[in-house]
Amino acid sequence: MVYDYLLKDITQDLSQKAIGTNKGLAKIGDELVNFVYSVAKSIYLTKSNSHNRAVLTSKKVGKKILATALKDANLKQFAKNRADAHDLADTVEAIIGYVWLSNQMQLEELIDFLVDNFSGNLNDRNEEIKQAQEVFAKLLIHVKPFLPENEL
Amino acid sequence: MVYDYLLKDITQDLSQKAIGTNKGLAKIGDELVNFVYSVAKSIYLTKSNSHNRAVLTSKKVGKKILATALKDANLKQFAKNRADAHDLADTVEAIIGYVWLSNQMQLEELIDFLVDNFSGNLNDRNEEIKQAQEVFAKLLIHVKPFLPENEL
Repeated sequence: MVYDYLLKDITQDLSQKAIGTNKGLAKIGDELVNFVYSVAKSIYLTKSNSHNRAVLTSKKVGKKILATALKDANLKQFAKNRADAHDLADTVEAIIGYVWLSNQMQLEELIDFLVDNFSGNLNDRNEEIKQAQEVFAKLLIHVKPFLPENEL
Repeated sequence: MVYDYLLKDITQDLSQKAIGTNKGLAKIGDELVNFVYSVAKSIYLTKSNSHNRAVLTSKKVGKKILATALKDANLKQFAKNRADAHDLADTVEAIIGYVWLSNQMQLEELIDFLVDNFSGNLNDRNEEIKQAQEVFAKLLIHVKPFLPENEL
């Protein structure tokens, strides 16, 4: 998968803010995050349920969940100044979009990372929110070495 | 990518309707279709624009577009009886979800198939709708050999 020419405008002047405030990356990342989360949740529920049946489901990852994950991973410097929860969530989506498009993590690696870090009962709504915040914070910490060190 | 155990309930009794009317497959397929379409559109717009800039965008593929594609591909027998446009679109999403989960087409192949079959100006809204209907109909015809021949 080599779609990195989609990053040509960003890589010319690569920085944490160039990635984290890119609206196009956030758009692609939004679809990517929802897709990998849905597959990962399906795999986890299929592997962990007792009646040995496949569970295929989907879930949009809420903006608050992603905003919390960015704060918990200490990566707020990627977001624009005075960012609200929506902006912070966009930053997470942009970072994950960047990591995928730049081929640092493949789709299957993203899915497997989420599956491997889930625990508890994802059928419980409150527990799922807590789990989702935690796994995305862990993913952000995991991908930080792939991201530029300069803020601007 | 081997997530085909997510299909274990379906493959026990595989048929065109078992795939095309599976609600879980349609959920995963919905996220998949929106993601691959968004990436494919971004690639096409980046390759075809004159100012040599990357275009990153996203787009939810409308139910009517997918319903039309299913009819144009002559695959209505995969849908439930008396299906409305929403049901027909779900069937397309389920088929594409099945093709990906069963590893008949990888993500990159889905994206490249759409890119290679786009033509014209996707920035024009009416032209984009027509293009989207056509490329999904072509994709469905392309994947038909990967699908079961028995209707029930």
